[in-house]
Amino acid sequence: MKKVSLKDIATAAGVSTALVSYVLTNKEKEARVGEEIAKKIREIARKLNYQPNYIARSLKSGRSFTIGLIVADISNPFFGNIARTIEDEAKRNNYTVIFGSSDENAAKSGDLVNVLLNRQVDGLIITPAEGSEQQLRQLQAQNIPFVLIDRFFPDITASHITVDNYQGAKKAVEHLIRKGRQRIGMIAYKTTLHHISERKRGYQEALQTHGYSAGRSLLKTARYSHLKEDMQLAIDQLLNSRHRADAIFFATNSLAIEGLKYINERGIRIPDELAIITFDETDALDLFYCPVTFVRQPIPEMGKAAVRVLLEQINQPHKGIEHICIDTTLVVRKSCGKRR
Amino acid sequence: MKKVSLKDIATAAGVSTALVSYVLTNKEKEARVGEEIAKKIREIARKLNYQPNYIARSLKSGRSFTIGLIVADISNPFFGNIARTIEDEAKRNNYTVIFGSSDENAAKSGDLVNVLLNRQVDGLIITPAEGSEQQLRQLQAQNIPFVLIDRFFPDITASHITVDNYQGAKKAVEHLIRKGRQRIGMIAYKTTLHHISERKRGYQEALQTHGYSAGRSLLKTARYSHLKEDMQLAIDQLLNSRHRADAIFFATNSLAIEGLKYINERGIRIPDELAIITFDETDALDLFYCPVTFVRQPIPEMGKAAVRVLLEQINQPHKGIEHICIDTTLVVRKSCGKRR
Repeated sequence: MKKVSLKDIATAAGVSTALVSYVLTNKEKEARVGEEIAKKIREIARKLNYQPNYIARSLKSGRSFTIGLIVADISNPFFGNIARTIEDEAKRNNYTVIFGSSDENAAKSGDLVNVLLNRQVDGLIITPAEGSEQQLRQLQAQNIPFVLIDRFFPDITASHITVDNYQGAKKAVEHLIRKGRQRIGMIAYKTTLHHISERKRGYQEALQTHGYSAGRSLLKTARYSHLKEDMQLAIDQLLNSRHRADAIFFATNSLAIEGLKYINERGIRIPDELAIITFDETDALDLFYCPVTFVRQPIPEMGKAAVRVLLEQINQPHKGIEHICIDTTLVVRKSCGKRR
Repeated sequence: MKKVSLKDIATAAGVSTALVSYVLTNKEKEARVGEEIAKKIREIARKLNYQPNYIARSLKSGRSFTIGLIVADISNPFFGNIARTIEDEAKRNNYTVIFGSSDENAAKSGDLVNVLLNRQVDGLIITPAEGSEQQLRQLQAQNIPFVLIDRFFPDITASHITVDNYQGAKKAVEHLIRKGRQRIGMIAYKTTLHHISERKRGYQEALQTHGYSAGRSLLKTARYSHLKEDMQLAIDQLLNSRHRADAIFFATNSLAIEGLKYINERGIRIPDELAIITFDETDALDLFYCPVTFVRQPIPEMGKAAVRVLLEQINQPHKGIEHICIDTTLVVRKSCGKRR
């Protein structure tokens, strides 16, 4: 089956190819052609199932109508859900999405940025990896529109969509305090990324405000690249010490899942022996024998905002940057137990 | 920062732009230029951080070095993991991936195919939706390379990568029989898609072989678009009847997760009151209070095979089609209980 060309439509409509091209690419200027002939051309195009060649169109308009998306890992449900929302929202705006996973690795993220730019994406939505500031500065120098999501760098002036990580963490820890927990541990990724720093700050602030010592010994970190070993060590340290933790706050869903696997292995009962609270939701936390209380990030809102802000930047290059900070919700279930 | 052009490299090297273009786009014919000058040009290109314009290159080569991927839902961990494997494998071959979610809806899938073709993808990897045969026939008529993954249509001659769904289901049901379960129910999606039909056939065959009646009353279906209601109805029917089921085999991970949520809600204890087995793994099944026995699909193998077969089709258009069927593994945990 041959691809339908503008010429085929012109022949069928009995008009020039130039006129067909004019009508099919300049919707807004239709009045100058005559409504009836424009309508006829569009109907024939539809009947013949005409598909515009986007590469040719891209060369003309300088647009590819494609968004590049860099997430930490598309197989992590948090990022899978973000990708899904961005996909749906991009589609509503006739954009498609090319994606890549950085594995929280700045070198890999840099490669991805280059690949996506080579594919002439109109802009990027990025969950930036630690140490990727230079890449972002380069994008700015090249005037390439981009929006950061989930985290940002305070000293890089760029549009970003995040949740209020500080307040979210503070609410989580205050919930544990209200339940009478005395020695509240936290396990976070070992990173300087802003969203994790903010969650740590919320944890420490909540403890201090309520007169608990936020001893460093109760705040543990795990490397993204050595999650399993580091998690086991962190939990062992929290639970084997003389001042055994009676609650753990996990900074993300992937930390919670890895942590709960090991807690199960050690046969520790939630919530009686240990209260659990985490950022992010996932099916695994629903099906856990003791459904886990969590800080909900409004993923659909985040994804929609990211696409909106990016398209504004693409369409209005001189529009200022935008910082969007969305509130989280604490969803209380059973893993923090009853008030002691 | 201005984008580095071929002319910039030519000026720096003291040669013509045509020669630079020749060297940077025709690696294999280098000998005709002189090795030294070719090396010099490539070094300068690297030093200046030259990024080829893939759109211009695409028009020349007729290639976009982009794969279109259509999955049912990128936020489902099974498809998120498939996407991740395909992404990694494509990257190793200097391809990028554009993706879309069909929600198991043929009309949506058709729209996605059009969008991806408009983006000039070199080929497609598709988990086809029910009723999408006509789209695939059209792709064939247009000589567009594509590979089906996870399911296929027996009457469409196309390359496909699947697992042995029939044997996988049979093994699962035989495991339940060995554990002494007598009334084994199955819950599948309401669909004619081949992978689900094969799983149903494996279930029925296992029951018949072992002298159980595979009464239709124990095989229930749920609509993808009404999963929650249909699942509750199916489980109620299986558990409230006079011949109450003592085991349920779920045909996919999304069915198992939805089903286990409702089973928890009803307070039914696994494995004592009910044995559970499912196709597919996910964190949720690991963290369930009674880790769920499941049929493992080797996702990395599936994804790698899909990319390999697709690239072969792109590079060798007259190569024949390929059918790859990979074995599943039964991973035994606790949800089927001890032998009764």
